[in-house]
Amino acid sequence: MSTKLNIKNNEVGVFAIGGLGEIGKNTYGIQYQDEIILIDAGIKFPEDDLLGVDYVIPDYSFIVDNIDRIKGLFITHGHEDHIGGIPFLLKQANIPIYAGPLSLALIRGKLEEHGLLRDATLYEINENSVIKFRKTSISFFNTTHSIPEPLGVVVQTPPGKIVATGDFKFDFTPVGKPADLHRMAQLGDEGVLLLLSDSTNAEIPTFSHSEKVVGQSILKIFEKIEGRIIFASFASNIFRLQQAVEAAVKTGRKVVVFGRSMEKAIVNGLELGYIKAPKGTFIEPHEVNQYPGHEMLIMCTGSQGEPMAALSRIANGMHRQVTLQPGDTVVFSSNAIPGNTHGVNQLINSISEAGAKVIYGKMNNIHTSGHGGQQEQKLMLRLIKPKYFMPVHGEYRMLKIHAGLAQDTGVPKENCFIMENGDVLALTKDTARPAGHFNAQDTYVDGSGIGDIGNAVLRDRHELSDDGVVLAVATVDFKSKLILAGPDLLSRGFIYMRGSGDLIRSSQRVLFNAIRKALNAENSNESTVAKAMTDALRPFLYKETERNPIIIPMVLTPDEEK
Amino acid sequence: MSTKLNIKNNEVGVFAIGGLGEIGKNTYGIQYQDEIILIDAGIKFPEDDLLGVDYVIPDYSFIVDNIDRIKGLFITHGHEDHIGGIPFLLKQANIPIYAGPLSLALIRGKLEEHGLLRDATLYEINENSVIKFRKTSISFFNTTHSIPEPLGVVVQTPPGKIVATGDFKFDFTPVGKPADLHRMAQLGDEGVLLLLSDSTNAEIPTFSHSEKVVGQSILKIFEKIEGRIIFASFASNIFRLQQAVEAAVKTGRKVVVFGRSMEKAIVNGLELGYIKAPKGTFIEPHEVNQYPGHEMLIMCTGSQGEPMAALSRIANGMHRQVTLQPGDTVVFSSNAIPGNTHGVNQLINSISEAGAKVIYGKMNNIHTSGHGGQQEQKLMLRLIKPKYFMPVHGEYRMLKIHAGLAQDTGVPKENCFIMENGDVLALTKDTARPAGHFNAQDTYVDGSGIGDIGNAVLRDRHELSDDGVVLAVATVDFKSKLILAGPDLLSRGFIYMRGSGDLIRSSQRVLFNAIRKALNAENSNESTVAKAMTDALRPFLYKETERNPIIIPMVLTPDEEK
Repeated sequence: MSTKLNIKNNEVGVFAIGGLGEIGKNTYGIQYQDEIILIDAGIKFPEDDLLGVDYVIPDYSFIVDNIDRIKGLFITHGHEDHIGGIPFLLKQANIPIYAGPLSLALIRGKLEEHGLLRDATLYEINENSVIKFRKTSISFFNTTHSIPEPLGVVVQTPPGKIVATGDFKFDFTPVGKPADLHRMAQLGDEGVLLLLSDSTNAEIPTFSHSEKVVGQSILKIFEKIEGRIIFASFASNIFRLQQAVEAAVKTGRKVVVFGRSMEKAIVNGLELGYIKAPKGTFIEPHEVNQYPGHEMLIMCTGSQGEPMAALSRIANGMHRQVTLQPGDTVVFSSNAIPGNTHGVNQLINSISEAGAKVIYGKMNNIHTSGHGGQQEQKLMLRLIKPKYFMPVHGEYRMLKIHAGLAQDTGVPKENCFIMENGDVLALTKDTARPAGHFNAQDTYVDGSGIGDIGNAVLRDRHELSDDGVVLAVATVDFKSKLILAGPDLLSRGFIYMRGSGDLIRSSQRVLFNAIRKALNAENSNESTVAKAMTDALRPFLYKETERNPIIIPMVLTPDEEK
Repeated sequence: MSTKLNIKNNEVGVFAIGGLGEIGKNTYGIQYQDEIILIDAGIKFPEDDLLGVDYVIPDYSFIVDNIDRIKGLFITHGHEDHIGGIPFLLKQANIPIYAGPLSLALIRGKLEEHGLLRDATLYEINENSVIKFRKTSISFFNTTHSIPEPLGVVVQTPPGKIVATGDFKFDFTPVGKPADLHRMAQLGDEGVLLLLSDSTNAEIPTFSHSEKVVGQSILKIFEKIEGRIIFASFASNIFRLQQAVEAAVKTGRKVVVFGRSMEKAIVNGLELGYIKAPKGTFIEPHEVNQYPGHEMLIMCTGSQGEPMAALSRIANGMHRQVTLQPGDTVVFSSNAIPGNTHGVNQLINSISEAGAKVIYGKMNNIHTSGHGGQQEQKLMLRLIKPKYFMPVHGEYRMLKIHAGLAQDTGVPKENCFIMENGDVLALTKDTARPAGHFNAQDTYVDGSGIGDIGNAVLRDRHELSDDGVVLAVATVDFKSKLILAGPDLLSRGFIYMRGSGDLIRSSQRVLFNAIRKALNAENSNESTVAKAMTDALRPFLYKETERNPIIIPMVLTPDEEK
């Protein structure tokens, strides 16, 4: 059973496979007749309640089902929530990818890791590229964001232009290229049918700070620090890294880099010319202790408190080259992403306890968001002047607020569509209508498995994490109605059963009686005995401990054949 | 082996059993010779990594060991992190408790639940009380906080006065009684040996808003809302509840209350005179649908996104009396405590998706903290002018910043002591010295068990929550070296093994070979066979799935006697 959009020949269908009702796994699609344009293919990092899940990706069935129509995947920028899904997608559907130089370098790295690089079709684009298919054509415009080369995408279709902003802020003094306000204004003048715009900071009423302001703060802070500086930030924000390197050069410091993603980012940044530094600025990890403190800048990963990242290892005395010492100053050029707050706070405590100074928080203008607030979202709406509006890249409440902003700037309420992943919006040049829904659920990636974790497994993990597991085993003979071995009990994550001999013995007694009774019942079999064991043990353990561990009964029979 | 403080006869010892290096389980002690004064006995809510733990309390061994010296437990205010430990403490050491009327009402409720009320010795105090023992005497002063009757505590000892602020802010237009600035100033003039002061908001440079400002915002917001209002806040902030009730009365609304802690708070507030409302203001839950929307205020628990609280049930369509409808407005008069951010955001999404409006966030002056920021902490330091300073009630980084503030206000650096739970500070009238440490670790309360959960059990719960559990069982006969039943496999929280018949069969093969080999080895026994099973299965499962479930091997023998 294959999925097709339920749209008419004169309609363009617009949909998200991921990215609506969530921050993450952005994957948008635009179909006109037999041509489908995809924009971005991201992953989402799992929330805490997805125990043990590594990433969340979309269900790519729609793409697989429509592989013949897919003209290409166009990448707005190189963040994980926009490119992280590419290896998983390409395993299922090898489609051509169009991306800017930095995004392409990051994608190549991913594909190489997954052994997919050789067979991938990759095209380098820039803001001036125009990619023409038979019925649709794709062009681009520069925006500003927390990674170089963010592109807005314009999909020209017969019913009209569809513009996807990608992630953006309006930074009028950016470190990289400026946003192309004139192109946006021109698009607005020519007429845009539909705008898909970034809703991330729809709850923030203010205008975001410029990246250059952060750079100035970094320099001011570096100038005041006398000892070593340990600088943690998001590795993907190459502008930030560049500004830290520049501040190091200006204050006479060598730079050493720790953490794989930071090292990669610096290498990419140097190769693509985003990071510039005089020869001899960067030193090797093993040289870090050859320079006095006031001549060292240590740049590292781990600003989110990730326990295995360089900064956590440095703070906890588990790093090979760097040990924290009084006189060191750790600078967090980042904010804690919700969900990481506790980890970051603990990390700041550890650093502080080790005697180092810590500079963090909003106070010092040491970080700025890559996403524009309400003022910037309204500026985009005013420039593009879309007939129809679809807020994307946000949880429901953000989409809702963003739709309100669109109405404030003159988009009629009935022309704003708050949609879910898999919802289809069908547009002609004068009309827009919801046109059904296809399946676009979450797929969990866990270890090497994709999609073999579901709600039942996650529910079990939750219960296991609450009260642990108790395992009850007995070998029985259904002919003689005898218990040949056991019942035995083992537990994990429950309580210290070793210290509770009484509890074990009384549980065994409870089980023994339950098994005997079940064996002697009519039509007894493995599952009736197993059920009797659980039914007897669960209330007993709850009464004794007020806990509800998962109980796994296991009934073995000696003559059983496998 | 009993714990005693290592202090001299002319020294007063000051220590925390809980409350240092953490937000929670505040329990402080002051000992002079054979008299020990305790201040507060709180619980801490567990962080996410304490899987399944309900509360954290201090290890009360010190109190039990020194029961003969304890003169009483003095309560600063009725929040859980100051009174929640009382039932657990009283089970181990029945000591007299001194508290204000509201705190006492809350404590009585707790003791009743635990069947401890009959034997408890409770004394009601107020800001004018003076409790005299042979060598020490205790007096109090009013402060302002987010619950009525917050008291600062002054312990007069022969070496000097020790002042504990309790939780405080400086609210110059409070809803309840004003802070007694003059008494604080007088204490400062008379001379204070040591100040223990609240560090919660040491990272916040600003002066906190007044509770009255919040009340004005609530009224303004209520005046603009045309439909039903659903108002969620912290139940313990009786001032906030009172201001919401007042705004309801002023805008012609009836009030209905949902959620056990909110109902209790309203009852306590009415009884003690903190909440006042004309007769007929409060209606019964079953009457909620008898009034038009613009005449209803629904007050409920669940502002932290707690899944079982009234607001979550309302948002998810699982509440008996209230179903969300377009036209409803939900007001969050609260902030999300770190760790709850995700849950609160999900709740806002649900409410928004149900078509109701949501008012939340800092934008509307709809919430204020109960703890003073840096300016207020400095004001306290300036008023009390202590010779020595011990920041309390905070994680390490907060204590550190607070100590810095003390130095900014003139306390010499060497007179500031950042301590840990169990550390002892010994003071004479002119000296202060660290005087050793006693054991004051965390104790986990989980179900009915206290202290029967430790790191090994928690580590197991973590591993279980990551990749689940796989259980492998076989019945073997060590005499004949035969496998009589099994090997069998069962899993929970691992992957869908039902769909992986191949994985089960090949795992059984791996186990079978490992067991046979182990059985045939010299001196084989249950534990060598079990170890062989784990050693064979773990790498096999990792190779096949890149997951590391907990493996529980179980070896049964038919002739075994239990």
